[in-house]
Amino acid sequence: MGAETGSTGTTDDRTPQDPVADRFTQDPAFAVHEGGKLAVRPLRGIESQQDLALTYTPGVARVSSAIAAEPALARRFTWASRVVAVVSDGTAVLGLGDIGPAAALPVMEGKACLFSEFAGLSSVPVVLSTTDVDQIVETVAAIAPSFGGINLEDISAPRCFEIEDRLRERLDIPVMHDDQHGTAIVVLAALRNAARVTGRELGDLRVVVSGAGAAGIACTKILIGAGVGEVAVADSRGVVHGGREDLTPVKRWVAENTNRAGYAGTMAGALEGADVYLGLSGGSVPESAISTMAPGCIVFSLANPTPEVDPEMAARHAAVVATGRSDLPNQINNVLAFPGVFRGAIDAGATAITEAMKLAAAEAIAGVVGEDLAPGHIVPSPLDRRVATAVAEAVGTCAREQRVTV
Amino acid sequence: MGAETGSTGTTDDRTPQDPVADRFTQDPAFAVHEGGKLAVRPLRGIESQQDLALTYTPGVARVSSAIAAEPALARRFTWASRVVAVVSDGTAVLGLGDIGPAAALPVMEGKACLFSEFAGLSSVPVVLSTTDVDQIVETVAAIAPSFGGINLEDISAPRCFEIEDRLRERLDIPVMHDDQHGTAIVVLAALRNAARVTGRELGDLRVVVSGAGAAGIACTKILIGAGVGEVAVADSRGVVHGGREDLTPVKRWVAENTNRAGYAGTMAGALEGADVYLGLSGGSVPESAISTMAPGCIVFSLANPTPEVDPEMAARHAAVVATGRSDLPNQINNVLAFPGVFRGAIDAGATAITEAMKLAAAEAIAGVVGEDLAPGHIVPSPLDRRVATAVAEAVGTCAREQRVTV
Repeated sequence: MGAETGSTGTTDDRTPQDPVADRFTQDPAFAVHEGGKLAVRPLRGIESQQDLALTYTPGVARVSSAIAAEPALARRFTWASRVVAVVSDGTAVLGLGDIGPAAALPVMEGKACLFSEFAGLSSVPVVLSTTDVDQIVETVAAIAPSFGGINLEDISAPRCFEIEDRLRERLDIPVMHDDQHGTAIVVLAALRNAARVTGRELGDLRVVVSGAGAAGIACTKILIGAGVGEVAVADSRGVVHGGREDLTPVKRWVAENTNRAGYAGTMAGALEGADVYLGLSGGSVPESAISTMAPGCIVFSLANPTPEVDPEMAARHAAVVATGRSDLPNQINNVLAFPGVFRGAIDAGATAITEAMKLAAAEAIAGVVGEDLAPGHIVPSPLDRRVATAVAEAVGTCAREQRVTV
Repeated sequence: MGAETGSTGTTDDRTPQDPVADRFTQDPAFAVHEGGKLAVRPLRGIESQQDLALTYTPGVARVSSAIAAEPALARRFTWASRVVAVVSDGTAVLGLGDIGPAAALPVMEGKACLFSEFAGLSSVPVVLSTTDVDQIVETVAAIAPSFGGINLEDISAPRCFEIEDRLRERLDIPVMHDDQHGTAIVVLAALRNAARVTGRELGDLRVVVSGAGAAGIACTKILIGAGVGEVAVADSRGVVHGGREDLTPVKRWVAENTNRAGYAGTMAGALEGADVYLGLSGGSVPESAISTMAPGCIVFSLANPTPEVDPEMAARHAAVVATGRSDLPNQINNVLAFPGVFRGAIDAGATAITEAMKLAAAEAIAGVVGEDLAPGHIVPSPLDRRVATAVAEAVGTCAREQRVTV
């Protein structure tokens, strides 16, 4: 932002500067990031001594005293209940890996923009200078009274599982690791509609999940929870089964809850006759493997920017193809889930985001497609403003039915 | 905020609701706090697939990659460098004491409103569920990459001294405990002008400071730094001197750096012949003590809402009287200092807020009064928009001269 003296704005945040003509001028992404992407603004102006005396001292003391006497009033008279912290340690940022907190910040700012745009929620990026699990848990717990929800983001597996579990246990506000559950919710929504458009039932599907990281594990859990018939999960060493001796606690859970046939071969082998390939791993799957899948199969190949299965090749074998890319049909994009999930949970005063709330969110996303359902249109556009409203309503209703509200 | 389903705003934060007709309706302070006082907003809208692809994936990945390769770019392409965390553990909130994080939050939101209104800086309230010094230091250090400055607020003494010292040591961004230094800066500004209007020099003044808490200690330090002739500090047990055996480390420093005469009596005794009374303690000072001060003396009685020295009584003896109250002349209000101090430090890329920067801020505040200087007008109005600009310019210039910039 430079060191220009006397540039103090007295009424407002600085407007983004004109991009300096330099090596960043060619890429419009840098222009959009010049000076950052967010601002915190007061909801009401301070023009008079009276405004000052009500917004700050002495008036604010009466509000603070009331909350001290009756803590539930904080929900009504502070912003905490409608602001989500987007927390990351920068260890698994997009496809870039462990790039640290400063470099992760633009992603978290982007997420905060989406929370505002799609759900009308305020959101604050919190990037951390530590990658230690205990320290992350302690830090987030320490700052939690400032927020109404915690969106964990871009934290590497398997640390992300423990961090989320411990924070969910400890806090009485919604906590969700979006790379896990946001992805899982949208994948389930897409799979519901892919099954519908190909005349299948979820209970009859045999699904092969490629990848046992954050998204792979969460997708596996939600598919089982939704009643998908058979799931097998492959990592870089092949399909996860109980006979393997290299299993982490999470993969041990996978071995116990998937692959009922006890198949011990490669992912390519597992794909023979499978109805669904769900790629969350990167890498490349050959046509020889895809061609052995069931007729009219479903291929979700979500690695970005290069899908595991070439979309053109996939189209030669599959009835439905989805990717993570915005330039292809059926983009699986988390923005369909997280804004509405948090908005619904927060509006309902939910103290957690439960499995049932995630299933309700997936159904709501799938439902928005409605009559427009087609093999090339199994999920709504990420820009469809109806989605967050439908998701929030479904999640809130579920929270109240489950009585997980304050 | 209630649990109304289907109320999802799709473009904006919810506007504040009409206050529910209830026991809070009578006090306009509650109406101003309904739903909280802040919102985080994107600087640019997301209307198209292109906007989405630049603000979030895949465009954001190019910005994150650039920062990962060249960390200094974070200052240009993220919001961190222009957002201040307002951090409190809720242990010393206004005159209310230890009311905890939730009840402290309205005060921190108010502070954030003032940062935006007066300095155009974004600011995020961070209230903590811990009061442990180590945990507070670790928490703030962990979240520091998210921010361009740390404003510590309403943390009780003597913990506030250690917390600020350790964070200043550890972080390379401006850290300031406003209850200490904001107050000290405005007091010095007011004292400069009070001395000027009564024909005195700072070096000739004998000052009695009542109170050895956060503000008392910081005022003592800045008065010494500004060259005030003699300072004595009194706490509830009388004037601090080296012979006392009840001294904390901070009061030991006071004993070694003030009260050169080694006076060991009461505050009332110290006031005999003193030029300045600076009240930062609460309680009540009798007329019999004030009447013994030097002719044309200066009384700053800052306890709120009830000044230590009754202002009408003080006027019978003093040439200049200042209080913390907005309904009386010469209001000593921190809002004259902190917005400009942080704005100047941040614009200059300062890695700390030094003593020299604080002195420069005080001089700038005093300077804004200019030709309007009078016994009843020694500080600008808290609403005077020129102040933050002048302070930011002075602080930034000082930072560059001292070379404490990135």
